[in-house]
Amino acid sequence: MNFDFVTPVDRKNTASLKWQRYEQQDVIPMWVADMDLTSPPGVQKALSKAVSAGVFGYGEVPQGLNQAFIDWCASQYNWQVEKDWLVWIPGVVPGFNLAVEAWLKPEQGLLVQSPVYPPIRVLGNLRQRPSVDLPMSESINNFSSYLKPETSALVLCNPQNPLGKVYSRQELEELAGLAEENDLLVISDDIWSDLILEPSLRHVPYASVSEVAAQHSITLMAPSKTFNIAGLSCAVAVIPNPKLRASYRKKMRGLMPDMNYLGLVAAQAAWEGGHDWLEALKTHLNANLDILENWLKDFPQIGYQRPQATFVAWLDVSSLQLENPYETFLQGGVALSPGEAYGESGYLRLNFGCSAEQLKQALHRMTKVLYNVGVIK
Amino acid sequence: MNFDFVTPVDRKNTASLKWQRYEQQDVIPMWVADMDLTSPPGVQKALSKAVSAGVFGYGEVPQGLNQAFIDWCASQYNWQVEKDWLVWIPGVVPGFNLAVEAWLKPEQGLLVQSPVYPPIRVLGNLRQRPSVDLPMSESINNFSSYLKPETSALVLCNPQNPLGKVYSRQELEELAGLAEENDLLVISDDIWSDLILEPSLRHVPYASVSEVAAQHSITLMAPSKTFNIAGLSCAVAVIPNPKLRASYRKKMRGLMPDMNYLGLVAAQAAWEGGHDWLEALKTHLNANLDILENWLKDFPQIGYQRPQATFVAWLDVSSLQLENPYETFLQGGVALSPGEAYGESGYLRLNFGCSAEQLKQALHRMTKVLYNVGVIK
Ligand SMILES: Cc1ncc(COP(=O)(O)O)c(C=O)c1O
Ligand SMILES: Cc1ncc(COP(=O)(O)O)c(C=O)c1O
Repeated sequence: MNFDFVTPVDRKNTASLKWQRYEQQDVIPMWVADMDLTSPPGVQKALSKAVSAGVFGYGEVPQGLNQAFIDWCASQYNWQVEKDWLVWIPGVVPGFNLAVEAWLKPEQGLLVQSPVYPPIRVLGNLRQRPSVDLPMSESINNFSSYLKPETSALVLCNPQNPLGKVYSRQELEELAGLAEENDLLVISDDIWSDLILEPSLRHVPYASVSEVAAQHSITLMAPSKTFNIAGLSCAVAVIPNPKLRASYRKKMRGLMPDMNYLGLVAAQAAWEGGHDWLEALKTHLNANLDILENWLKDFPQIGYQRPQATFVAWLDVSSLQLENPYETFLQGGVALSPGEAYGESGYLRLNFGCSAEQLKQALHRMTKVLYNVGVIK
Repeated sequence: MNFDFVTPVDRKNTASLKWQRYEQQDVIPMWVADMDLTSPPGVQKALSKAVSAGVFGYGEVPQGLNQAFIDWCASQYNWQVEKDWLVWIPGVVPGFNLAVEAWLKPEQGLLVQSPVYPPIRVLGNLRQRPSVDLPMSESINNFSSYLKPETSALVLCNPQNPLGKVYSRQELEELAGLAEENDLLVISDDIWSDLILEPSLRHVPYASVSEVAAQHSITLMAPSKTFNIAGLSCAVAVIPNPKLRASYRKKMRGLMPDMNYLGLVAAQAAWEGGHDWLEALKTHLNANLDILENWLKDFPQIGYQRPQATFVAWLDVSSLQLENPYETFLQGGVALSPGEAYGESGYLRLNFGCSAEQLKQALHRMTKVLYNVGVIK
């Protein structure tokens, strides 16, 4: 089957976060991590059916959704997940914030890698727990030097946003050893798990490396990045340890909204029937990466490593000596994500989850910007 | 225009909380408060358009939604709301839980009326704050005798679930006096505000009775009951006081999911174009109430007062001397809500938000139950 990653989508004047922010300007939004691509046909079909039925009362996780997720974990990660372990949540970000609230005493702290997705970066701050930054460049056998007496949890982001790094089984095993030795909970944000672009790699959930790892961890997953349904607020926390699960559920009660009906419908359809679409999407994203790399050849001043996963590229523009790289490109008509938010100024994050045409248009504008600032003579 | 409140809707095997719970049994679900009726045509149309576009990335409240809600408050409640006061939230229940977390110190307590919607009833318990029950039969000038030194907030439910009581302006003014005198925050759950069935009554938001009331209150509203879109997780907290609003927003960050895209789309369509449908719905619900009252004439043993608002009826079945009224009717094929959950055993709550046919079928089954238990000789 052929899927359409070519036809432009028009998200102007829809309730889109990505497009609304720069609506008044002539700007191509290449920032927040959703894709300017349509979701799998099966997702559209299931939503369409639900909308035609016309009733939008309270949703509840159907058995079919549990099973679809369990099957997905088995087929995609070779991970056998039990239904009892699943706690459905309306987002991965609320998911890790809840984990901190549920499991950490006020004086207990976090270890957080940097640079990283902003809501992870500010997690300790928001939940008023001490937080230690751990450079992404550090190897796991050095992690212990960052531990403080109060450190009680480590936040993993795998695959990592913004670097696109995929952790190997060996690294995760090392990490599990460290966590066990130091009595750390591991909060693993695996929202990008399905978007591994490097064909030789596979996603290994942290909790799958050993029973010990499973028992001190929470794994946060979602169909939102994979199938471009981030706006439908459906995610799941996998918590094999019954005590941790009970305290998590207890903390949630009242605070978390019910799972929204159409999010449940979309998630089930996505996991049940999205396999082929996902393969096609990864091919498309790799082709977009090739376009980006081809463009970058003309700008060796911009530092870059091909991401192993995700649909975002992490560009080191520090050598361009721009006062405010984000603003400079925005003035040139392209909205990127500023590196500061991730803990690393001098960088920009480019979202290449769009049509080739849109990516080329954005790169064309970026060329002009680089010309204007004197990078091209 | 004619709207359809007659054609049966089939919610079996959809991800419906109401229908899924008793799926294996021959049971008519007349419990959780959503309606077995289709949403306004405009809502279906807007959702349909969004689904056809096929992109479901992150949503963001559009200006049109703010305006639609502001206009709704002006036209329906004669209440002038400012855009700055609005904090969009994924549900009313998370909304009042957050209010407690944001504004009450751990030792500060709540005043909560009883019987009441279960999540309000357990609010103090869940958020670990002392909570005092205040009987619904108590008049407002007696409220002060229930105040404890630690009482810092009062939770109002207006219109009230399960009694269907609508508070008058005079009562609310009295309440505002009490709140001011005793330095109480007022958390007003107005989720039922549009479903006033008694034609002589209008909804008065607590915050609208005086500037003082506005400044010590949060009003929680939603299109969810009104337009039967409770499954789409869209609600709004109106907080005129900037300090309260700031601390509320701060507490939310990270914990609350983003507003889901289709919920925003549906809410805007509902408030923009749902006026006529709502009028027709209220007529339909009043007709259902007539059916219910007609049925009740044969059972004077069942205590009942016509609700001024909501689509739930609060039935006093204590004189039937049933060991477990909920179970008795469930065995007879009708799922009602057990009074205990609201703080009053011996009662049952019946949801009449459905077609007349469905209501009649349920009542027919209930007649049989009453026959079997010997109420009818
Ligand atoms: C690492 C990571 N976690 C979580 C999220 C968002 O999760 P959610 O929208 O489910 O809260 C993102 C979105 O970009 C992300 O990159
Ligand atoms: C009084 C009251 N508040 C809140 C709710 C539910 O609010 P939400 O679904 O937005 O959390 C209900 C639902 O029955 C209700 O009756």
